[in-house]
Amino acid sequence: MKKIDLVEKEKQREDTGFGTIATSTSARLVNNEGNFNVKKIGQSFEARVNLYHKLITMSWAKFAVFSLGFYLTVNLTFGIIYYIIGIENLMGIDKNHGLSEFWEAYFFSSQTLTTVGYGRVSPVGYITNITASVEAFIGLLSFSIMTGLLYGRFSRPVPRILYSEKALIAPYLDINGLMIRIANEKSNQLINVEVSLTFSRNELKDGLVKRAYYNLPLERSKVKFFAMSWTLVHPINDASVLYGETLASLAASDAEILLAFEATNDTFADPIYSRRSYLYNEIEVGKKFLPMTVPQEDYYLLDLNKLSDTIDAKLNA
Amino acid sequence: MKKIDLVEKEKQREDTGFGTIATSTSARLVNNEGNFNVKKIGQSFEARVNLYHKLITMSWAKFAVFSLGFYLTVNLTFGIIYYIIGIENLMGIDKNHGLSEFWEAYFFSSQTLTTVGYGRVSPVGYITNITASVEAFIGLLSFSIMTGLLYGRFSRPVPRILYSEKALIAPYLDINGLMIRIANEKSNQLINVEVSLTFSRNELKDGLVKRAYYNLPLERSKVKFFAMSWTLVHPINDASVLYGETLASLAASDAEILLAFEATNDTFADPIYSRRSYLYNEIEVGKKFLPMTVPQEDYYLLDLNKLSDTIDAKLNA
Amino acid sequence: MKKIDLVEKEKQREDTGFGTIATSTSARLVNNEGNFNVKKIGQSFEARVNLYHKLITMSWAKFAVFSLGFYLTVNLTFGIIYYIIGIENLMGIDKNHGLSEFWEAYFFSSQTLTTVGYGRVSPVGYITNITASVEAFIGLLSFSIMTGLLYGRFSRPVPRILYSEKALIAPYLDINGLMIRIANEKSNQLINVEVSLTFSRNELKDGLVKRAYYNLPLERSKVKFFAMSWTLVHPINDASVLYGETLASLAASDAEILLAFEATNDTFADPIYSRRSYLYNEIEVGKKFLPMTVPQEDYYLLDLNKLSDTIDAKLNA
Amino acid sequence: MKKIDLVEKEKQREDTGFGTIATSTSARLVNNEGNFNVKKIGQSFEARVNLYHKLITMSWAKFAVFSLGFYLTVNLTFGIIYYIIGIENLMGIDKNHGLSEFWEAYFFSSQTLTTVGYGRVSPVGYITNITASVEAFIGLLSFSIMTGLLYGRFSRPVPRILYSEKALIAPYLDINGLMIRIANEKSNQLINVEVSLTFSRNELKDGLVKRAYYNLPLERSKVKFFAMSWTLVHPINDASVLYGETLASLAASDAEILLAFEATNDTFADPIYSRRSYLYNEIEVGKKFLPMTVPQEDYYLLDLNKLSDTIDAKLNA
Repeated sequence: MKKIDLVEKEKQREDTGFGTIATSTSARLVNNEGNFNVKKIGQSFEARVNLYHKLITMSWAKFAVFSLGFYLTVNLTFGIIYYIIGIENLMGIDKNHGLSEFWEAYFFSSQTLTTVGYGRVSPVGYITNITASVEAFIGLLSFSIMTGLLYGRFSRPVPRILYSEKALIAPYLDINGLMIRIANEKSNQLINVEVSLTFSRNELKDGLVKRAYYNLPLERSKVKFFAMSWTLVHPINDASVLYGETLASLAASDAEILLAFEATNDTFADPIYSRRSYLYNEIEVGKKFLPMTVPQEDYYLLDLNKLSDTIDAKLNA
Repeated sequence: MKKIDLVEKEKQREDTGFGTIATSTSARLVNNEGNFNVKKIGQSFEARVNLYHKLITMSWAKFAVFSLGFYLTVNLTFGIIYYIIGIENLMGIDKNHGLSEFWEAYFFSSQTLTTVGYGRVSPVGYITNITASVEAFIGLLSFSIMTGLLYGRFSRPVPRILYSEKALIAPYLDINGLMIRIANEKSNQLINVEVSLTFSRNELKDGLVKRAYYNLPLERSKVKFFAMSWTLVHPINDASVLYGETLASLAASDAEILLAFEATNDTFADPIYSRRSYLYNEIEVGKKFLPMTVPQEDYYLLDLNKLSDTIDAKLNA
Repeated sequence: MKKIDLVEKEKQREDTGFGTIATSTSARLVNNEGNFNVKKIGQSFEARVNLYHKLITMSWAKFAVFSLGFYLTVNLTFGIIYYIIGIENLMGIDKNHGLSEFWEAYFFSSQTLTTVGYGRVSPVGYITNITASVEAFIGLLSFSIMTGLLYGRFSRPVPRILYSEKALIAPYLDINGLMIRIANEKSNQLINVEVSLTFSRNELKDGLVKRAYYNLPLERSKVKFFAMSWTLVHPINDASVLYGETLASLAASDAEILLAFEATNDTFADPIYSRRSYLYNEIEVGKKFLPMTVPQEDYYLLDLNKLSDTIDAKLNA
Repeated sequence: MKKIDLVEKEKQREDTGFGTIATSTSARLVNNEGNFNVKKIGQSFEARVNLYHKLITMSWAKFAVFSLGFYLTVNLTFGIIYYIIGIENLMGIDKNHGLSEFWEAYFFSSQTLTTVGYGRVSPVGYITNITASVEAFIGLLSFSIMTGLLYGRFSRPVPRILYSEKALIAPYLDINGLMIRIANEKSNQLINVEVSLTFSRNELKDGLVKRAYYNLPLERSKVKFFAMSWTLVHPINDASVLYGETLASLAASDAEILLAFEATNDTFADPIYSRRSYLYNEIEVGKKFLPMTVPQEDYYLLDLNKLSDTIDAKLNA
């Protein structure tokens, strides 16, 4: 029956969630950092800004600058307020200490914000006391938030999966295979690892260029332990969508290979995810990977520098 | 055999956990915020109140008011206690500072609660010292709790999945399909997305109105990446429970479509869940969605404002 | 082949992890709180004590006593140390304040531990200064730990699944079924719920009493949403191990039914687990559950008080 | 077809992620603590050091030393800075207190770092005030980080699965089986337990020694509850790779058995993982485990000391 056929066929079509919009651009789906190459407009302010997400994922350098900047800004703001209220409400200020009146207010603000409260200078009068009370509250609240942010940053699972620079078309048993080599750069232990490869290219259909997606079945898509390196192999047999493809045909169709990596980090028993894409110009034909493990007397040695090392290899017919 | 038949048939019946109680009401199962439309009586006090749950899920505005209110209340309470014990036990109070005796006690309380402890005013005497010791302990404990609450609020996975305002009956291949379009409003990356649709309506059975539930199989119920928008499609072939249904028949049976969304948030590697329901009056016939992705030179642009944009489309016979 | 047969048969045997040790006792496998009814000897000190686990799972009342006790003990200990070192090293102590010397030391300790540090009394001399420095460090460390403990206690998933007091043998379609009714007492939303039932009894085999385990297949073992109550049904057809059993035979074999409940808590997207067991004397024959849902105009009302309400029901032959 | 055969055969080969590199060494894959016996070179500084991971996984003794050392170092560093700036900027220092000027600076530093701030000594002058402001900020930040580290350490799932010292070849039904006994040393409740066994040995293939891996199917690889001990059984039927092996042949091929354990910790509903390997010299033939559960009147008693207790047992032919 014709109806069922079309629906069934559609169901079997591979889909990665990137859609099939015709594109003549050479935009990658996933950029080099493993992020989706997508921008959004029409987000609400809250969804667009998402301060917590930014504070957790920004670099440590930026985070340090942000934290210090926040501290100094609040400190300064309250310092100015005390100065405006009038430093006659700060008991204990004394010209002999060599600080100008503003800086006395500023350092009083600092001692209040951190709750050090030496007390040489102390607030008198309603408004100054109220301000000091608010500042101490804000100080404690800020360090509460800082505690959460620091824990969030430290405990966030950040995998460091290394991917070979190139995907290779290499001899594999008595046929050829697409090969990518991966390793865990960190010293932590990854277990229950699962990997999937998706092949994507432009296809001409009814006069329209559409993006098509194909799963590339792997020789082995799961391993129990990820202790060494792992060479992913998609066997290019006659059932493979890569069968008969050349570098030229891959370039002509803007081909891209998407790799999705999932594992469990044994230290915290939490899942980690990583992604990488290979554009057509990151595929090499007729090479194979050199070994990167060096057996030692009583342990195994993995040399991560050799991850992308290859030599020429004659392909099978 | 008859016995097996009935049991087997019952096993295949769809059930969402809402039960099959006959209802003549038009109560939705899931309200607009995606919450179950259920109230409970007979809960224990602890289960009903569940302060932590409330403090984590209340709005930021309410939470700020609650926090400030708590701080001021504790501050005031201890201020009153010091005042009642007698301000002669607060050394350093001095009329020249322009504060009434009560306010001196109040601000001493404030300085103790935040552990600023300037020390201009300090406690003497047993009872005042004990009270101050308790207040400082409560202060530190409160900020410990506040730290946990703030981290809990920030780190709670709050998905912002956008759903098209209407579910459409649109042409799909050579038949028609029920279509709903969804997108991720946030800029974070969602992976391993899974969606299910359940159709629910009143049915007359043995003279009783019962609520019946049917799974609506999707053309595709999982995608690896949720980078763009995603149009969910339930093909209305002759096996579909929607086959032959009209807007009138859907209204007559109080029809409701339940959508359950699950995904993994890549940033924290944690799962997220979202729900949405479409009542019969949120279904439109003979429309299809307009594109919302705009390809750019070197990235993809998703216009969230166009999520619910449709045009008329002639249905297949 | 005989060998394969025995091994295959063994593989199909149900096992819950409680083993098959012959027992003539009437010890339950799971007690009323859902905990395994097992004690261990030979645990290492660390495994047996497991302070964190205890501090997280003890009642709030006990935890409050423990916290306050810890605070007072540390406070007192350091107070005694300051007193022994000699209160001449605490500057600012003055008989006019009406406190004995020991209590001055005690309250100084308190002000140091909480980092209030008013400074009326302050340390002089090496040993007192070092002690104060250590006490402030311990104080901050303690409140760091307290923060973690409080967050751990609050964020720990504590399901409150209500189980009907009795398991019923009730009419089900044209046969009978074992029925247990459950509900979620909390107001949070549980999704992706899965339940399993295991039947356990003593059996005489080769002259030895052994404990045997059987899975009781459910009419439905998963629901997407757990919004209302849910009546679990094991159909007692002729394939069921309960077929032909009577209350007398269940009692004679020390029968016990184990219920394992798993779900996802939607608020925090975390999994929850609950267990319950029914001994033979908690099974009733010829009863069925009364409805506990009351449909309202625009919402559903679930009366938890009616969870265990039953009426007599004539069983099918 | 020849091509398919080779590829299919390769797909069925067991792989644990340790690769098949020829080794003449006797290096274990997994050491006694369950860690991979692998070292890496070429890691980036960040991946190699991974301070958070180290601080979370180091022993409590080391962590205490590290924390105290950090506190004293920061304290001392700032003490030196105040001393260098000049103690004339620390108001309140007075020779009569019996402390040298440096130690006055040191204890002032201590009071600032912990935010105690007694105030007997307080900063005057720009540079000293700025330094004190920075130190108080660093102090609060450090205790924020400490809070996160302590929570991370406490809440990290650390399973204590006990494994029998030896793996046994014991009679099993009418054949023999490889048996390993495990128990949970902790008092917490483990559920949904899953175990897998992998057998690894050197094999001579085309003149090269390669490492081969085989899954050892278990009589039962999952249990719902892990309340008692659990004896894992791999039946050695003629389909088993161990069929016909002797202790001598296992030793000759450097045989190793890898055990991977997964479960859910019921208290926190989090997953836990454990590993153990048995080298050929940790396998005993013709022994069986003695019971370790002692039934009591109204509970079960598990004696962990008996986990590795065995007696001789005549093997089946």
